Amino acid sequence: MAEQASPERITPRSEDYSRWYHDVIRQGKLAEPAEVVKGCMVIRPHGYAIWEKIQRALDDMFKATGHQNAYFPLLIPESFIKKEAEHVEGFSPELAVVTHAGGKKLEEPYVVRPTSETIIGHFFSRWIESWRDLPMLINQWANVIRWELRTRMFLRTSEFLWQEGHTAHATHEESMEEARRMLDVYAIFAEEWMAMPVIRGVKTQSEKFAGALQSFCIEAMMQDGKALQAGTSHDLGQNFGRAFDVTFQNKAGETEYVWQTSWGVSTRLIGALIMTHSDDSGLVLPPRLAPVQVVIIPILRKGIDETPVKDAGEALRKSLEAEGISTVFDQRDYKPGYKYFEWEQKGVPIRIEIGPRDLEAQQVMIKERTGSDKVAWSLEDLAVRLKQRLGEMQDAMLEAARKRMAENTLYVDSYDAFKEAMTDKNPFIYAHWDGSAETEAKVKEETQATIRCIPLNAADDPGMCMVTGRPSAQRVLFARNY
Amino acid sequence: MAEQASPERITPRSEDYSRWYHDVIRQGKLAEPAEVVKGCMVIRPHGYAIWEKIQRALDDMFKATGHQNAYFPLLIPESFIKKEAEHVEGFSPELAVVTHAGGKKLEEPYVVRPTSETIIGHFFSRWIESWRDLPMLINQWANVIRWELRTRMFLRTSEFLWQEGHTAHATHEESMEEARRMLDVYAIFAEEWMAMPVIRGVKTQSEKFAGALQSFCIEAMMQDGKALQAGTSHDLGQNFGRAFDVTFQNKAGETEYVWQTSWGVSTRLIGALIMTHSDDSGLVLPPRLAPVQVVIIPILRKGIDETPVKDAGEALRKSLEAEGISTVFDQRDYKPGYKYFEWEQKGVPIRIEIGPRDLEAQQVMIKERTGSDKVAWSLEDLAVRLKQRLGEMQDAMLEAARKRMAENTLYVDSYDAFKEAMTDKNPFIYAHWDGSAETEAKVKEETQATIRCIPLNAADDPGMCMVTGRPSAQRVLFARNY
Repeated sequence: MAEQASPERITPRSEDYSRWYHDVIRQGKLAEPAEVVKGCMVIRPHGYAIWEKIQRALDDMFKATGHQNAYFPLLIPESFIKKEAEHVEGFSPELAVVTHAGGKKLEEPYVVRPTSETIIGHFFSRWIESWRDLPMLINQWANVIRWELRTRMFLRTSEFLWQEGHTAHATHEESMEEARRMLDVYAIFAEEWMAMPVIRGVKTQSEKFAGALQSFCIEAMMQDGKALQAGTSHDLGQNFGRAFDVTFQNKAGETEYVWQTSWGVSTRLIGALIMTHSDDSGLVLPPRLAPVQVVIIPILRKGIDETPVKDAGEALRKSLEAEGISTVFDQRDYKPGYKYFEWEQKGVPIRIEIGPRDLEAQQVMIKERTGSDKVAWSLEDLAVRLKQRLGEMQDAMLEAARKRMAENTLYVDSYDAFKEAMTDKNPFIYAHWDGSAETEAKVKEETQATIRCIPLNAADDPGMCMVTGRPSAQRVLFARNY
Repeated sequence: MAEQASPERITPRSEDYSRWYHDVIRQGKLAEPAEVVKGCMVIRPHGYAIWEKIQRALDDMFKATGHQNAYFPLLIPESFIKKEAEHVEGFSPELAVVTHAGGKKLEEPYVVRPTSETIIGHFFSRWIESWRDLPMLINQWANVIRWELRTRMFLRTSEFLWQEGHTAHATHEESMEEARRMLDVYAIFAEEWMAMPVIRGVKTQSEKFAGALQSFCIEAMMQDGKALQAGTSHDLGQNFGRAFDVTFQNKAGETEYVWQTSWGVSTRLIGALIMTHSDDSGLVLPPRLAPVQVVIIPILRKGIDETPVKDAGEALRKSLEAEGISTVFDQRDYKPGYKYFEWEQKGVPIRIEIGPRDLEAQQVMIKERTGSDKVAWSLEDLAVRLKQRLGEMQDAMLEAARKRMAENTLYVDSYDAFKEAMTDKNPFIYAHWDGSAETEAKVKEETQATIRCIPLNAADDPGMCMVTGRPSAQRVLFARNY
């Protein structure tokens, strides 16, 4: 058996949360900084496999809600970006620009898409003629570039992978319905697949998408209490319709601008996943998104016949796969302890150890990723019971995340209490706000907390702004954020 | 029922083959030229759905052969491209260059990846240390840009979607095995999924990938007789290993450069699909790659109760889906004839018509996309029989394509006969060649035919070059090409 380099240490969260995050990514072999390409990263196979699981689940949900995938050009004429006033203001500072191609200087530069409202608006104007062509429900899986000054793997990188939905409707009512529907799809995905509870809400005007009338979002709480915006859905109104002349003939024969939405989630979700569940031993994955759900490790000693264990391991792997459990039987030439460590850091939910003595007893040893003890389980009906256990683990992770969010959420009425609560901690705080950008900016400057959203479906709870005492219709969610 | 614009005409192949190709794409709603982005196209939902089916099938085959997906940066430092001498010479004229980002001029420009050997080589050098890390088997699904002067939708566009496999091995023998294995994967995919027979072979030195020792390819025959390179697999030797210092410690403890391969297929396959099977009525799709395999069209007349037909149509759709057949029950408010036309142009393999009289007789009318007559089929066991029929249609399409290729393939021994055969026609010609670049260039200049490949697994058949009379070990494949 060969010598192995000793695995590197993961910095504990209590010591340095930011280093812990990067250590989990490195040791889980999820990604690494590209370095030679500023602000970009390489998504390694284990990270990309999680992204593929996210994609598959979301894509199914998009198709079930009537959307079709398409693909639009990566490069967008610079003039397109300038057609919608707020849009250009919001995105100009972040653009990567292609000025030369095919050995020549281009007459008009292209920007690398930071998002595709403009180029898709252009094509919608060619495809949409009458109310019969509506709604147009398109989604695109793509890479985008936003040249960020401060980057952090998965959370904010200059290039990232995402999906962007773009839809056009005959009425504002319908487009609003769509924007809300897709927000709900994201929230359901976050809870049911990522085991990550989220708050659904509306962004303030200062935090909305550049070019939208209104932006909806889902906000999740990370383990350090900070908020992470995990998905957004925008009511674009007729802004891009006017900018790109996307009109249709309504049933009465009149020409109108379409009402549009756009919505997206990105590889940022992997960052959210890490910071919701992982621990000081490395990655922890909810079973539904784990590329490998169970790993089987043979326990072999020198001088014994390895065949029975290998045969049993392979038979077990097949029976788990038949039950729909993604399973690896790790027969590599490494010591068991090394394998335990590696798979633990990769977040595999369940480890099975199988050796000659286990076989005699018709059992295996089970170690759950976040469980403290190994437990003997009978081989009988093992696949079915493991499948059930994986479901229970998924539910327990959501429950634990919900509990953490509840415990770290406060309702505060005075600004002094707010500042006090924000000292040395990062709670979610529901407080009253007078609706002004000034108050929002003041709180941000003084506490680094921002209004994450104006929650949807909030109970009727009028009050007075904690800062100015002016009237407020409902509490809004304040938090520090990523 | 509303008025519809009459669908546009598809130019017959005999009239103008190139216009026919573009008409099929337009009428099938597969794609359209982007125009505002030079040489680029938009892949519309029906075209993208075909790409998704291609992706899914190939991705499964890649994973079954041990490959993992990953994602590398879109932007590549310009200096990277220059590290491999042949590579830079081959790709320089086609590069799109990002010179500005985040509002500033970049110190070193980035090129938008035309292919990723260089950036992946850089990361391989960080990831690979010992023979234990080999083979490294990576695949990437991505967009690339090659600024082409003359473009044609799907076949050659400035931006296209593809997969690029990149692998590193301990020995040349292993990397050659990999290159051949992936060529076989492509050939099997082409035949079993696309119903498109291909010739496997080696490129001549003048046609090989810039930076490879040797390029393997699959070549298919389009309906006009021209060849289309449908996939390539490259033996990169140690060229990129040396350029990016990708070394490993072998079992003897010595440091060696790795042996690499790369291999790719692209959205060009959709062009190949169109030109292999489609006809003057529009797109024809092999059932295994058809996003919609069966469309059910209700035949309703005014004044009758529509419920029984709608219920029967929906029940039928469900029974077909349960059998694994992708089915659309088209209840849109259009006349049946309009729907027939539209689905025909979209290449749906089987159309089912169901009306009140059919229901009485417990039957439906079946029209196959390339069949001339409607035939009544009993409702009994319909799903099972349709599934079988789709399989037969798939086989028949491959058979027809094979027959066409055989009928249009010649064995020629004299250059006069070769030129004669190339007059007004585009056959595949197997002829002897002396192995020189001069002869290859002369034939190309005089006949526009190129050596598509030196076929693999060719029977032992030495002879004399048809042009120079010099000795030749085997016949090579000449054809005009896309």
